[in-house]
Amino acid sequence: MNSVREQWVAYIYGLQDNICAALEMEDGEAKFLEDIWERPEGGGGRTRVMANGRVFEKGGVNISAVSGKVTDAMRSQLKMAASFADKELHWFACGLSLVIHPLNPFVPTVHCNYRMFEMYDLSLGEAGDPAAVVDRWFGGGTDLTPYYLIESDAIHFHRTYKHACEAFDPSFFPAFKQHCDDYFVNTHRANERRGIGGIFYDYQRPSAEKDVDFWMRFGQQCGNAFCDAYIPIVNARKHTPYNESQKHWQEIRRGRYTEFNLVHDRGTLFGLKTNGRIESILMSLPPTVRFEYNYLPTPNSEEDKLLQVCLHPKEWI
Amino acid sequence: MNSVREQWVAYIYGLQDNICAALEMEDGEAKFLEDIWERPEGGGGRTRVMANGRVFEKGGVNISAVSGKVTDAMRSQLKMAASFADKELHWFACGLSLVIHPLNPFVPTVHCNYRMFEMYDLSLGEAGDPAAVVDRWFGGGTDLTPYYLIESDAIHFHRTYKHACEAFDPSFFPAFKQHCDDYFVNTHRANERRGIGGIFYDYQRPSAEKDVDFWMRFGQQCGNAFCDAYIPIVNARKHTPYNESQKHWQEIRRGRYTEFNLVHDRGTLFGLKTNGRIESILMSLPPTVRFEYNYLPTPNSEEDKLLQVCLHPKEWI
Repeated sequence: MNSVREQWVAYIYGLQDNICAALEMEDGEAKFLEDIWERPEGGGGRTRVMANGRVFEKGGVNISAVSGKVTDAMRSQLKMAASFADKELHWFACGLSLVIHPLNPFVPTVHCNYRMFEMYDLSLGEAGDPAAVVDRWFGGGTDLTPYYLIESDAIHFHRTYKHACEAFDPSFFPAFKQHCDDYFVNTHRANERRGIGGIFYDYQRPSAEKDVDFWMRFGQQCGNAFCDAYIPIVNARKHTPYNESQKHWQEIRRGRYTEFNLVHDRGTLFGLKTNGRIESILMSLPPTVRFEYNYLPTPNSEEDKLLQVCLHPKEWI
Repeated sequence: MNSVREQWVAYIYGLQDNICAALEMEDGEAKFLEDIWERPEGGGGRTRVMANGRVFEKGGVNISAVSGKVTDAMRSQLKMAASFADKELHWFACGLSLVIHPLNPFVPTVHCNYRMFEMYDLSLGEAGDPAAVVDRWFGGGTDLTPYYLIESDAIHFHRTYKHACEAFDPSFFPAFKQHCDDYFVNTHRANERRGIGGIFYDYQRPSAEKDVDFWMRFGQQCGNAFCDAYIPIVNARKHTPYNESQKHWQEIRRGRYTEFNLVHDRGTLFGLKTNGRIESILMSLPPTVRFEYNYLPTPNSEEDKLLQVCLHPKEWI
């Protein structure tokens, strides 16, 4: 039987294929271009990007499977237990990361990320050997960033993930929705959220009750839910007519997206500071963006309605 | 006679007036709008912003004079001497900060900042009392970010600051040009510089040879040189015809400007993390920006020529 790592990697590769195919079909014109890259320190990735589609102005669906020696910087960043201090350790991480920026301001931007991390003690076996695994965790999430609030879309999106979560543990959905609202925050803008939520979970280590198979299946369930959660919204909104001022508002909100990703996002900053593949990391930035001094929407306008739910997160179901 | 602080504040207020008047005249149409703000912890500022001018697409010329109690966070960030550990200290900072984003891609973006910092030991007098000053430093600089390299403009800009520096110390210009090249760096992009240089100096404390009057006059000389350094370039280039693809390149480069300011700039990050006035801090972001996956100019094109001098800083004179 394949190792946990092999099963997860195979799943992630397949998920990238499935999501890319669904997005291409929904766009109807643009195709993903692929860049396969290697990391000098170990591993590599398969970056797939799309630009100037009929529906998707810019998008990336990236996977990577990278590995290396555990460095002192990592030991302190990951707050590793003292019992690991003298060991020779290697790490491995594999995940999918996706950001889609649609052209039409009535179609929301979406982000998702599903990943697994393993650590090996080289006194117990080679890097990658299941017998040498001394730590392992799973993390992930999907979150929605609309420019106009369409409540039925917000409800559909959250209901899809609630459903995915409930087969595993009824406490997951409320906890992971809360974690999502707490993470994607522009703290420098009075705690305005980047979007309207979704789910986010991190550092989930297998336990006696929730073993490795549980967390792997949970990650797969959430990954598989992406198309169900997002594609129907795209399909329903992609033909909505829009004007220049609505596009302008989309570009203002994309400015907030840029601020969050460059100032606060842990994954982006970790990548920028550890010699990650820059173009794959920064594919998340929106295609066109506006920054205007002190821009505020008219009170009670449709734009303001969106802003208010970013300032005051809501339970959608 | 006025205190050092009073003299510097008066200078900074006057400099804002002079620079705003010169920029309005050069634009010929747009006017600066003024926002006066107060900081709950002490002091405030006068933000002046311009948008959608004939020449300047977005610009801000901001001043602030702020003060407060020295906190533990400041003590460690400023690496303060142990001898200050038990004292009750207050700080004061006053400066001008300016960023101008022209519409025409042949007119460079410019940034400048001139500031003074004082610290008071409250056992020696009140906050602001010259007798209580236990530390003081000056900092500043002006740097140019063109989208197309016009060598004569680069030379004029640097020559103006070389001239300003040389009346004070012949070692200043080479040292401060180097410091500028070393500071405005997108380290995550193979050390690509934000622009083509200028001068930058920081933490300059008065000494027996270079007293407080020396550093105040030096800051004033550099501040006064701004219009001489920049306005003739604007005047010479503002009517240059340009096409959509040149505007596109300008927006790509503005993406790099955004990356530097949000990921690396100490002043911006300090402001975002210390409850600074967000809209005044982020006025530096360009009006319209593009982020494209793996965008590279054609080798040996005019766009590539600019990129090469950002990757390999040059001595212009």
